[in-house]
This record gives sequence, C-alpha cells and structure tokens, in this order.
Amino acid sequence: MAEALISVIPEMKRKTVEAFVQKAVELDHDLIEKKTAPVSLVTIGRAENGSGVVTAKESIEEMPKKRLAKGDSICMDFGDHHVGYVTLKLHSAGSPQDAPAFLRLKFAEIPNEILDDSSTYEGWISKGWIQEEFVHIDVLPCELKLPRRYAFRYLEVLALDTSQKFQVVVEGVELTAVSAVSMDAVKPVEGLPEDLQKIDRASLKTLQDCMQHVFEDGPKRDRRLWIGDLRLQAKANYATFGNYDLVKRCMYLFAGLTRDDGKIGACLFTEPVMQVDDTFLWDYSLFFVSILYDYYQETKDLDLVKELWPAACRQIELALEDMKDGVPDTEKNPMLAFIDWKDGIDRQAPAQGVWIYCLRQGKVLAGLAEDTKAEARIGKLLEEALENAVKHFWDEGQGFFVSGPARQVSWSTQAWMVLADVFEKEKSRELMLHLLEENPEMGVATPYAYHHVIEALLHVGEKEKALELMRTYWGGMIELGADTFWEAFDPKDPNASPYGNTQVNSFCHAWSCTPAWLLREYF
Amino acid sequence: MAEALISVIPEMKRKTVEAFVQKAVELDHDLIEKKTAPVSLVTIGRAENGSGVVTAKESIEEMPKKRLAKGDSICMDFGDHHVGYVTLKLHSAGSPQDAPAFLRLKFAEIPNEILDDSSTYEGWISKGWIQEEFVHIDVLPCELKLPRRYAFRYLEVLALDTSQKFQVVVEGVELTAVSAVSMDAVKPVEGLPEDLQKIDRASLKTLQDCMQHVFEDGPKRDRRLWIGDLRLQAKANYATFGNYDLVKRCMYLFAGLTRDDGKIGACLFTEPVMQVDDTFLWDYSLFFVSILYDYYQETKDLDLVKELWPAACRQIELALEDMKDGVPDTEKNPMLAFIDWKDGIDRQAPAQGVWIYCLRQGKVLAGLAEDTKAEARIGKLLEEALENAVKHFWDEGQGFFVSGPARQVSWSTQAWMVLADVFEKEKSRELMLHLLEENPEMGVATPYAYHHVIEALLHVGEKEKALELMRTYWGGMIELGADTFWEAFDPKDPNASPYGNTQVNSFCHAWSCTPAWLLREYF
Repeated sequence: MAEALISVIPEMKRKTVEAFVQKAVELDHDLIEKKTAPVSLVTIGRAENGSGVVTAKESIEEMPKKRLAKGDSICMDFGDHHVGYVTLKLHSAGSPQDAPAFLRLKFAEIPNEILDDSSTYEGWISKGWIQEEFVHIDVLPCELKLPRRYAFRYLEVLALDTSQKFQVVVEGVELTAVSAVSMDAVKPVEGLPEDLQKIDRASLKTLQDCMQHVFEDGPKRDRRLWIGDLRLQAKANYATFGNYDLVKRCMYLFAGLTRDDGKIGACLFTEPVMQVDDTFLWDYSLFFVSILYDYYQETKDLDLVKELWPAACRQIELALEDMKDGVPDTEKNPMLAFIDWKDGIDRQAPAQGVWIYCLRQGKVLAGLAEDTKAEARIGKLLEEALENAVKHFWDEGQGFFVSGPARQVSWSTQAWMVLADVFEKEKSRELMLHLLEENPEMGVATPYAYHHVIEALLHVGEKEKALELMRTYWGGMIELGADTFWEAFDPKDPNASPYGNTQVNSFCHAWSCTPAWLLREYF
Repeated sequence: MAEALISVIPEMKRKTVEAFVQKAVELDHDLIEKKTAPVSLVTIGRAENGSGVVTAKESIEEMPKKRLAKGDSICMDFGDHHVGYVTLKLHSAGSPQDAPAFLRLKFAEIPNEILDDSSTYEGWISKGWIQEEFVHIDVLPCELKLPRRYAFRYLEVLALDTSQKFQVVVEGVELTAVSAVSMDAVKPVEGLPEDLQKIDRASLKTLQDCMQHVFEDGPKRDRRLWIGDLRLQAKANYATFGNYDLVKRCMYLFAGLTRDDGKIGACLFTEPVMQVDDTFLWDYSLFFVSILYDYYQETKDLDLVKELWPAACRQIELALEDMKDGVPDTEKNPMLAFIDWKDGIDRQAPAQGVWIYCLRQGKVLAGLAEDTKAEARIGKLLEEALENAVKHFWDEGQGFFVSGPARQVSWSTQAWMVLADVFEKEKSRELMLHLLEENPEMGVATPYAYHHVIEALLHVGEKEKALELMRTYWGGMIELGADTFWEAFDPKDPNASPYGNTQVNSFCHAWSCTPAWLLREYF
C-alpha cells in the first residue's frame, strides 16, 4: 500500500478575490464537441504477463446482430482514447420484454480495466472513481443517455440479467467527445523517427483530453485542477495547442480562491461552487510563481504579471513558515511537498530544489512587477537557499545530493537540484551522468517525476541521454498499447499504483504529456 | 425450486382490433398523485424466526444530521406501502467532495427485503426485479430524481463509498405516490372487529396500489395486466373503488390484442407498444368470459356485452382445442392452466371446474347477446362438462374430486368443483366441510388459490369457516406486519416463493386483495 495523501482541515477559512474569479469565469469557453462511434467489437483476454490485451476483433456491424442474454457481454473499441458523453440505442429481441433489463456498463481507458473486478477494490481512494454503472431499463427500445462524463477507449456492456424471454441488443452507441482544443490545431514535429512520433501523438492526445473547462489532472480521476499538473500542462500547451485563455483562467482561479492567509491550494474545485480544497503542498503552492513566470516568458503579458505578482509573492512568504534552519521542515510533515508518489522517497532535498527554482523565477517576476523590495528580499533568500542546499544536502564523498536524516540518494533530488542550478552547468551535467551511471535505487514512480529527470538532462545538454530515457519510459507505455500516457508507470511492476490498486489509476494523466513539449523545445 | 412458467413462441402472429384498442386508449386517465415523505428512520434486524423486523425507530428530523461515510447507511420508513417516484435531496459534509459519491438505494415493501443480499439471488425470474439502484453522484449538493417507479415502504441509502474527505447527507426525500384511485373514496365496513378491519384496510391498499394505468398484478413485479388477477381485482373494485373505466379499458385491451386466431393472452403489455404476450393459460383465456359476465352483473351494460361477446365466445371455442375425452389435456402440458403456484399440484380437475364455471357464465352472456346458436352449443358443452367432471374426477370412496393419473386430492380441485356447482349446494357444502376435516396435503401456495377456497365456502353458506380461514391466512400476513397482501404466503414457510427466492416476490399483489370484496359482499 502506498502512502496516503489525505488532508482534512475542519472549518478551514477561505478568501475569495471576486475580481479574479470573475475574470476566470469570463475566460471559460464552450468546449469543442466531436461526435464519434465505436469502430469495432473486441475480445479482451490476458497476456502472458497477466495484463489485459485485445485478443480478437470483429466488425462493429456485427453489434446489432448480437442478442445479449443473462451473462452475455460485448466490448466496443472506440479506436482511441476519448473524453465525453455516451448515448446507447438499445432494443430487445425475442418475446416481449417481461422484466427490466439489468445492465452493467464498464468504461476502460486500457484493456486491463475491462478485466478488473471492482468488488475486489480495497484502495485508499474512493471506489466511486471506477467507471462502472449499473442500470435498470424498464422499457426497450430506448435511448440511454448517460448523464456522466467518461474517459475511455473501451466500453463493455454486460447483461447482468434479462429474462428467459428476451435479450438485449445494442443497436448503436454515440459518443460526444469534448475538449477545449482540437488535435487538428497541432502540427506534428518534422523529421521525427516513428517511435518518437508515437510518443508525441500520445502526449498530445493526453494533453487534449485533459484540457476541459480547466486543465484537469486526468479526465478519469480526479477530473480537477491541480497546480502541479497545471505547470507542466501549461508548458506543453504553449508548445502545441497554444490555448492561453485556459492557462490564464486557471491562474485567476488559484489566485482568486485561497486560504484566508492567501495560501494557494494544491487543487481547487469549480463545482458545485468554486472553492479551494483543504489540501496544501509546499512545492505546489510555490509553483504558482513558476506558472506565472512561464506564462510571461510565453506571452510577455506584463499586465498579468503586475496583477498576480502579489499572489505569487505571498507563496514565497508563506513557504518560509514551513522551513527550519533554512530548509523545508519535513520532520514535522514528511508529505510537506509532493515531489513524486514514490514509496519511501524523502522529500526534503528535492523540495529545497523546488524552492531555489521558484525563487529564481520569483526574483525575475518581482523585477518585472517593479517590486524592488521583494526583489531584494528574494535575492537574499535565494543566496541563503543555495548555500543551504550545499551545506545541508551535498555529499562530496558520494558525489550526490542526499535527503533527510537517512541521507537518501534519490533521482528526484538530483533532478531538482540540477533544475535549480545549484551548481554551474558542467558540474550539474556530471551529476546527471553520475546519476545514470550509479542508478540509485530510489527512482521515480510517475511520469511527473520522470519528466523532471529528463528535463534536468536536457537542461545540462544531455539530449541523447534524455531521449534514451524518454524512449524507455514513455516508449514503454506505447509498447504496452497506450493511446495516452498514464498517471503511474513502473516498467518493472504492471500493478504499480499510488492508491494500492490500479483500478483507480488514471491512464490519461496530464503530468505525463510533456514529451510533446520537450520534443518541440529541445530537438 | 418451483416449477418455471416460461412461454416463448417464436414469431407468434398477433391480431389487433383497432377499434377496441382505440377505446382502451380513450379510457386511460391521468393517475392521482399524492406527495408524501418518510415519517421516521428505522433500524431493521432479524426476528427469532430469521425474518426482517424493525428493531428501532428515530425521528425523521435526525436524518439531515447524519453524515454517511463509506459503509454507513440509513433506512427511511414511509409509514405505509406506496407506489411512486422518488426524489432525494443530497448534500455533502466535511471537506470538499473530492470523488463521486457511490450510493446504493434499496426499496423494500417489507423489512426483510432490506436484509436480502441481491448478489445471492439465483431464482428463475430476472434479478432485474430487485428494487436496488447503484448511483454515482459527481457533484453534491444535488436533487437526485430517480426516473423509475418503485413499490415500497422502506428506503435504505447506503454509502458504498465517499472518500476520506467528505460524507453524504440525505437532507430530504419526496415521494410522489400514484394510483388510479384514492383510499378516501372507500368507506370502511361498519361493525367489523379490529382484526378484520386491518385485513380490510390492507386489502384496499393492495388494490389501490395495483390500480395504475391498468390493473397491475403487482407494482413491484410484474407491473403488468394479467387476466387472472384482473378477474379478482375487478370484483374487489366493484365492491370498493367502483372504477368501471379501468375494468372496461382492460377488457378492450385483452379483446383488442390477441393471437391471430383470437386467443386472449394470459397477460399483455402497454409499453413500448401495446401487445399481447406469448404466454397463454387455458384458465386465464376462459376468464375473459367471466370478467365480462361480472362486469354486466355490476353495470347492466348490455352494449358492451354485445360488443365483446364474440371475443368471449371465441375463448370457449379455442379451449376445446386443448381438451381430450371431454377434459383438459394436461398430459401434453401439465402447466396448461395456472390454478396456483403450488408445487406438484395436478391442474386437470381444477381446470375442469374453471371450464364449467365459465360455461355457465358464457351461456348467460350468449343469451344476453341474443346469440341463440352459441347459447345452445354452450348449453350442450356444459351438460357434457358436468357429466365428465363426475365421470373422470369424482371418487365416491374418498368423497373427493381427484385429479390426474395419480388421482391427487387437492384443495384447489374441491374449491373449483364447488364454485362450478357440479353438485347441488348441500352436497357441495358437505364436500367443503369434508375438505376442512380431512385437510389433504395438497393445499394452496397463494392468496389467489386461497381466495377460491374461501369463496367456495361462502358459496355453500359456510361464512364462519370462511372467516376463520381468512383470519388465519390474511390475518397471518397482518401479524407479520403486512401493509399490503403478498403474492405468496405459506404460514409454515417464511421463505416460500414461486421463483426459488423471496427477493423477487411481490408483497403487494392484486390477487390477494379479495377480502375487501368478500367482507362487503358476504358479511
């Protein structure tokens, strides 16, 4: 079982900046809708390693010929990952329908979810995330318009019961796929070899399906705006779809909906009311600085910097409350910062890397906002932070940054210290090569953390090594049939899940979309 | 496991008499709607005999104070049996709702259904009849308006999952109860002792809840017009609610929707299209004669007799096709006639009783319709039928009618031979007293068959004996807490079910409503 991240702050006080929320509302646009339908019927069986794979295909034209009696099922393949709303045209066959048809509908992003048995789910997040519905239909024929949104490629219809007199027929299914952006808007990268083309395509699809009324972390789960995901999505979006309004909207939401002291939350809700969650992560709050910095680099929108700088600056001030001796205080709360879902990872040193990374960007923003006082103060904090990074975490003997009382050597720590430019470029490059060579055990569990390793390699000019890792890791998912990239992936463990069970894993997850950006930015 | 009654006639040809169907449509009226709400929260536990009982009560005002976390449930009591549509007002408590709420709603006519585990259901009719829904709610608060109609007194809401951050609150529930008639329209029988008052009240409620757009057999299951139930409902309705349009509508439906040779079905559907089922029962088709006869006795509507006599007469002609040597041919099909759900009952002799009973009424109708040819022919058939009843089935030695090659002595056979007036009244009276005294093992399984035993006793003037049986049998259900009377009841076996499992039993079943009529007609 993975560590659980559950934050409940009873009676938490919130602050709303109405002007920001109003601007966020104005920046909300209608989604692009696209009607589509299943392309074939498939049979899903188990591969040798035990995971689900498509073992047989049939023409979709066979579907209306199939009569589903008790226990019978069909599985549709929509040909690609989609996010949207489904309407089924159902009919009956045989004698008159003398009982309600009782159906189970299972939506699956990957074939394995079709084989999963939800009754065995015992993870620490809600079973409610499993995309499975139980429906009684009193009168056939009918158009069954499901009110909920699903993220899926496969849809299984199982007749839990009909009666001995009639069978259920699925005459047709229509899917209205939704997104804030269209795949047609993005040109493929020229001259990419085929394997990287596939990685690029899946990255784009991942990003597209996560771009809804906000940048969602994953359209299957949590379907919600998380700031850690937003930072990576925004950058990938700049290089691809170029939807600036959506980024701006999300920044206004985070700045407009905070804890009463101005602390920006790790995530926020737009329904039923707009409100910040009572979950706070030290690195995530700081990333607001980074997102504003990146947006300015992309758009040169100085007005927005001036408008949101106070909110960004506040995150730096508030971060200090959770520091002790000049470094993040992870003694009190080991999950203070997120960093990665990796079991057993120590978060102190990588969080120090994030701190320095954000201070550098904050200093630039303070300058742009003409906040000289803050600029000076952040300059001083940055100096101290750099000193403390070396003093507290650098282990000259090992040639690695170490983290926490156990002096843990992890991939994430090195990546963040390199991205933070704690050392000058050449020394950072040596550190990254040393990391690849030594391959310390405390690796990464998610594409989110893997991204930072690759970005660090690119940051020090090691394109080939970066590409190699991208091919192994993201390419590894492609080899397993991914249409979109996953929330969690451990090439050595197909059952890896941050939640104790893969059934609730998201297989189209925003923080995994970055190859589309990296391939455009660095190659 | 009980005998299964499943009839499938592939490609059965049907005939529609548009004029009759049109009249049936015109006779369809809006239902009376009545808003109501739960009156208390209850806890349901097991009594000593293992069945479900209410073990504790709480004020309904406590409901909105309860926070349902994973695994928590509440059970509402609506104070009486109802048929209708439910809307729940749901909210969340705690931190923001960070996952879909996954709820199970269980509707129960009797407490035992709350304890039933639907996953164990293995009966021969559809599991789809179990009134249980599984619902995901993405955004709370919400008004959950369930589209289906339910028959129930108790409603359990179980939080299958929420998340560790929030709980579900049921703020309120509204039920729109529906029926073609209102309980206020019927006066109680004056001077009845309390126990019979209770039986009368439950009978009326049973009938009311079964009176919808047609006379349904049971609002939980099958929610459909069966002719065997209709015959008893119509008679009970004449003595109570007096809704003649609904009876007339149902007669037009049966006469207007037949097999291509004019055979009237055992039941019919009004949705999605009006059509007769492909289930035929010998006694049920004949009962069309009886229903028309009873309607005339009640209304003296000679026009209707003339209009529907050909359809009624046709049932007598067609019945002959399933007779051999002057008696029903149950060798070929032991389930030729329904009679009762009693396991092992031989249906030949009681069917002969039904035959004579309907011939007598048919002869009267033929006379009213001035169909002299049919009148004479039926007269002849009746003579032969009476002779054959004695010749084939009377066992002078035992003093009982016997049925089938095993010469089975059953309650139903004696009851129907008495109702058919095979003997003159005094000999019939002796036969009924002999039946009570000897108490043969082949009894009855349903209030439907029990009704005919009681009616036979009343027919021969044995009011006290009839009342005694009514008190034992219907009173037995009252003692077990019945608000409405059940489809099946065996005082010795609480698990009695025609379907192999009580979970799909109907606990408000039309054919059990007759005490309200008998108490008004005979006492």
